[in-house]
Parts: sequence; C-alpha cells; structure tokens
Amino acid sequence: MSLPRIAVDAMGGDEGVRVMVEGAALARRRHDKFKFLLVGDEARIKAALENHPGMTGASEILHCDDVIAGDEKPSRALRRAKTTSMGLAVDAVKQGHAGAAVSAGNTGALMAMSKLALRTMPGLDRPALAALLPTLTDDDVIMLDLGANRDCDARNLVQFAIMGAAYSRIVTGRERPRVRLLNIGTEETKGTEDIQAAAEALRAATGLAMDFEGYVEADKINRGECDVIVCDGFSGNIALKAIEGAARFVTDLLRSAFTSSLRSKIGFLVSRPATELLRHHLDPNNHNGAVFLGLNGVVVKSHGSANAKGVANAVEVAARLLEDDILNRIRHDLGEVGTEGLVAK
Amino acid sequence: MSLPRIAVDAMGGDEGVRVMVEGAALARRRHDKFKFLLVGDEARIKAALENHPGMTGASEILHCDDVIAGDEKPSRALRRAKTTSMGLAVDAVKQGHAGAAVSAGNTGALMAMSKLALRTMPGLDRPALAALLPTLTDDDVIMLDLGANRDCDARNLVQFAIMGAAYSRIVTGRERPRVRLLNIGTEETKGTEDIQAAAEALRAATGLAMDFEGYVEADKINRGECDVIVCDGFSGNIALKAIEGAARFVTDLLRSAFTSSLRSKIGFLVSRPATELLRHHLDPNNHNGAVFLGLNGVVVKSHGSANAKGVANAVEVAARLLEDDILNRIRHDLGEVGTEGLVAK
Repeated sequence: MSLPRIAVDAMGGDEGVRVMVEGAALARRRHDKFKFLLVGDEARIKAALENHPGMTGASEILHCDDVIAGDEKPSRALRRAKTTSMGLAVDAVKQGHAGAAVSAGNTGALMAMSKLALRTMPGLDRPALAALLPTLTDDDVIMLDLGANRDCDARNLVQFAIMGAAYSRIVTGRERPRVRLLNIGTEETKGTEDIQAAAEALRAATGLAMDFEGYVEADKINRGECDVIVCDGFSGNIALKAIEGAARFVTDLLRSAFTSSLRSKIGFLVSRPATELLRHHLDPNNHNGAVFLGLNGVVVKSHGSANAKGVANAVEVAARLLEDDILNRIRHDLGEVGTEGLVAK
Repeated sequence: MSLPRIAVDAMGGDEGVRVMVEGAALARRRHDKFKFLLVGDEARIKAALENHPGMTGASEILHCDDVIAGDEKPSRALRRAKTTSMGLAVDAVKQGHAGAAVSAGNTGALMAMSKLALRTMPGLDRPALAALLPTLTDDDVIMLDLGANRDCDARNLVQFAIMGAAYSRIVTGRERPRVRLLNIGTEETKGTEDIQAAAEALRAATGLAMDFEGYVEADKINRGECDVIVCDGFSGNIALKAIEGAARFVTDLLRSAFTSSLRSKIGFLVSRPATELLRHHLDPNNHNGAVFLGLNGVVVKSHGSANAKGVANAVEVAARLLEDDILNRIRHDLGEVGTEGLVAK
C-alpha cells in the first residue's frame, strides 16, 4: 500500500512557509514515499518550492490566504475553519484528500478544529495530545495528555493509557508496553481520587495490551523505565515544560561554564564531539511531532519553533502512524476492553 | 540578640546520625553562633560527636530511641509524636526549648507533626512547603506549595503568595518581590478557576508587599525572571521533581558523552573546572532546606539524601528565618491584607 499524501499547513509556526516546505522536502529526500498537499499562500509556497526541485511532482498546492494567529482563541479560530490553512489541512483529512495533517500553528486551535472536523472516536470520551520524550535508553517514552484536557477523570485516564499503549507498540515494537500514571508518590494512597480510581481500574482490567506498573514520579520521566506515562493535561503540560526548561537551564549553565576561562574553552573544543552528542540527544527537533490521539484521523502538531529537521520528523511521525494504522489499533483496543465497564462514568 | 538553639532530628534521613551531626558541626564551623539540641539515640549521637570536638560545648542531647520510618503514614506517625526523634524535635520548638527544628525524615509525617504541635497561624487556612531553586541569576527563586496541600483553592494560593513574598524579602533583600502563579499559559483565560480567581485577587489587592506579575509557565521556573512562584502542592511537586529529573538526565547524558572517546575524556579533564562549576551550581545540597511556612514556629525539611553540606545549609536556612523573624513578617503581611476580603471562602 502506498502512503497517502500528507496535508501540510504551510502557514503555521514561527517561520511559516519556508521552514514548513523545507521540512517536507527534507522528509522526501530521506524517503521518496512522501507526497504532499501544501495548504497556504500559493505564491509564497511556489517561491519556497523553487529551492526544492524534488518536490515538484510530489506536491499539490491548495491556496488560501487566511492564517490562524498564534495567540488566537480556539473559539474564534473555529469560525474560520473553511478559509484558513490550518482548517483546510484538517478538512483535507476529513474529505479523504489527504491521509494525515501536520501543522505548526496554535495548538488549541488545531485541537478544536481537528475535533470538530474529524470527531472523537466512538466509545472514547476525549482525545489527548501525546508526545515522544527522550530517555537514557534507546527508546523514547510517550507521555499524554499534554494539554488538550485541563481536567481529566479516571475514565479519561484509562482511555489515555489504552491509546498511549497502542502508540507505543508502534514506536517501540513492544507487545506489552509498560504503562504508568504520573503521580506525586508511588504509594497507592498518593494523588487525587481520579488517579487512584484509574490505577485501580487498570490493575483490575484483563485483556489490556499493556503491563500497567502503577505510578511514576516526575523525576523518573526520562529514565526509560516505562514506555507510556499517563496524566491529565494540566500536570502533563507542567511536567513537559519543566523538563524543557530544566534541560535548557543546564545547557545554558554548561555554555557559560565552558566559556568562563581559556582552559575551559580549550577543553570545550577538544571535547566538542561529546557536547555535540549531547546537543543532538536533547535537540527538541529530534523528538518533534506531538499527536492528537483519539480522533477519526491523524493530526500531528509540529512545535512552533521547530526547524526544517523538526518539521521533517513531524511528517515522519504522521507517516508512521498511517503505515501502522494507529486508528484501527486504538479502535480495536478500546473495543476489546470496553471501558464502559472499567470505570463508571 | 543571640541565635536560639536549633533542634536537630538526628535520626531522620537516609544516613541518619552521622550525616545530621556532621552537618550541624559543619554549620558551626562556618559560624560559631550555632547551638544545638540533638534529638535521638544518645549513644550513637555521642559516638558521632567524637569526630567534632567543637560541638561539645554547643550541643545538648535529648535521648529517644524511636524513629519515624521513611514510608510511614503521617496518621500513624502522629501517634508517636512524644516518643520519636522527629516528634521531640518539633515539640522542643513548641515548648520554647529550641527556636527551630530541622529534620531529614518523612516529609508527610514532619508536616503532620508540625501542624499538630505548632498549629497554623491565626488568619491562615493552610501552611505550605516552600523551597529555594537555582536560577540563571545570582538569586534563587522560591516556589510553594511543593506538596503539603494536594488541592488548593484561590484563597490558599493568595496566602501562599503572601508567605512566599515574606520569605523572598529575607532571601533576596528585594522590598517588593516579583510574584507569579504557575500556569499552563500566560493568557488570563488559562488554567483552573482557582488559579484565575487567585490572579484576579492578587491583581486587585492593594497594600501587598509584592509585585504580582501574572502567570509563569513551567519552562521559565529557573530563568530568574521572578522571585516567588505559587502553585498547588500537586503541580508544585510535579514541577519540582520534573526539574530534578531533567537536570539529572542532562548531566547523565553529559557524563556518558564525556566518556565516549579518549578525545572527549581528555577534553573533560582539561575543562574540569567548568564542569565542577556546573556541578556546584546544580548540586541540590547547595539549595537544601525546604521550609514549612505558616506555622507558629520554624520547621525546616532537609532532603533525605542530603550530605553534611546539605544539612548545614538546611541549618543555616533555619537560622536565617529566625534572625529575620519570618513568623512576625508573615503575621504582619497577612494582617495588612486581610485575606478574608481578598477571596471569599
């Protein structure tokens, strides 16, 4: 089966057209399976394509000149679903003109538009935003929800666990991903009633394609000791941003330490391959591409500040989810378990 | 005024007596103002004191042989308040036999015992756990609550802001510390209703000894752009641990990068002073000493895994709070504002 083409919101993100087109072109240079529907200002997309002759036969342009602003309220953005690059990229998935959509625009607006156009999967209460985070091991860890749902009940958390496990099987190849709930301690009595009820349901459930291993504290997120970390969108957003900030804090300190004396500058130059390795491992572009799980369609959010390499990774995430049929995997797993019975609404 | 002596729970923490006594001795070597009430097994304390002749005239031993375990439930620990080293150290503050207590034991148990013995300040709904975190600037940032209260309403958050500002004035010397609420975005509409109501109250209030500057996201905690960060105990615990974990993750990566080749090993040796500087800045022992704010007495929690330097820092935090009369500062600020009027209960 050939890969369906991917709709790219060419206007979203901090740098817009240039980076989005360059990212798509980079993905295609890595693998020629990619075809694109580039949505946005035709003249600017054409200008950007001139630098990437390989893209000409592989991409179609869908013109529109309206863009969702980065600070626009989702409710306002929704009214322009049919006239904006973000809205039309998502709509292309709904209409079957593309297999998946990638956007680097406003997360809240993208979520709202995707929910409205693609609808939440039957049997599921709410979609969630999932991302891959680096660990000390070779495998990334999947964390969800990262901000799509501010408050989550036990049933939401159980469904997120099932979706996260389906995603993890694709990413890690593990038959039974190790799943944990984010909490402020590992004892059974820790955390909110919703977290405790979700843990109880996951422990009691049979037929789940995962090993539920209890709670994980936020200092263990990057240890690589589990494959999926489940949390409400508020905590997930706090944890994710705290990690990003702390990693930048340490590397900023490192940079100033390395330039504090001639001796340390020399040391830095000598050990450059080592610090490059560190930079590579921590570069958010290498882990770019958060996924809205639980919709009837694949939508990937690229970070607003991602460079072309980051956009290419987001495009590759979308391709992988299509190739491994994430939607049917989640539908199947939700059906197997029947979360109706797991946690009463 | 001479510094009142400090009660040290000599039995708490991962390593117990040896580290606690060594930490107290180290604080005293730095400054001879310190006197101690060492609470715990007399024979073991005496043995530990043999290595620190300077401590003999400066410390009294209060014998007891019961210890609160690290995983003990607070409710169970409370029943042994009169027989354990932790309980007796806190009780010494209540009885006026010591000015402050320092313990490296079980946080939940210490909080419960401190609340029961010292009681919450009049006019305050709940105490909070506050800690100093490193930033890119010379000043540390104060964050609270870090786990004493899982759920917090708007009124709690406003009171935490007032207490955090009082603490920050002592630490940074700023007349009007810059205070922010931790949130998942900086727009007014972000976050829970309680966070929004707290922000509204802090914006509207007059007579607060602080500049309230809105929301801060978790990736900015260590930037040094504000002096006090206020949050509920669940989010605070998640953020704090995520930062600790990410900092360790980066330094672990750095270590493995630096030992990945002979060249990088040499680079590491040459640049050692730089990496030592980094280690020093990130060493949690240099920021050790979380404070329970809002009680009628000073209680400082030393990290369970802190070394002697960390314990000495916790002892110095206790001394500083006594010298600068944190209790009366908080009482005064709470009285000035009358939080009754700020946010309706």
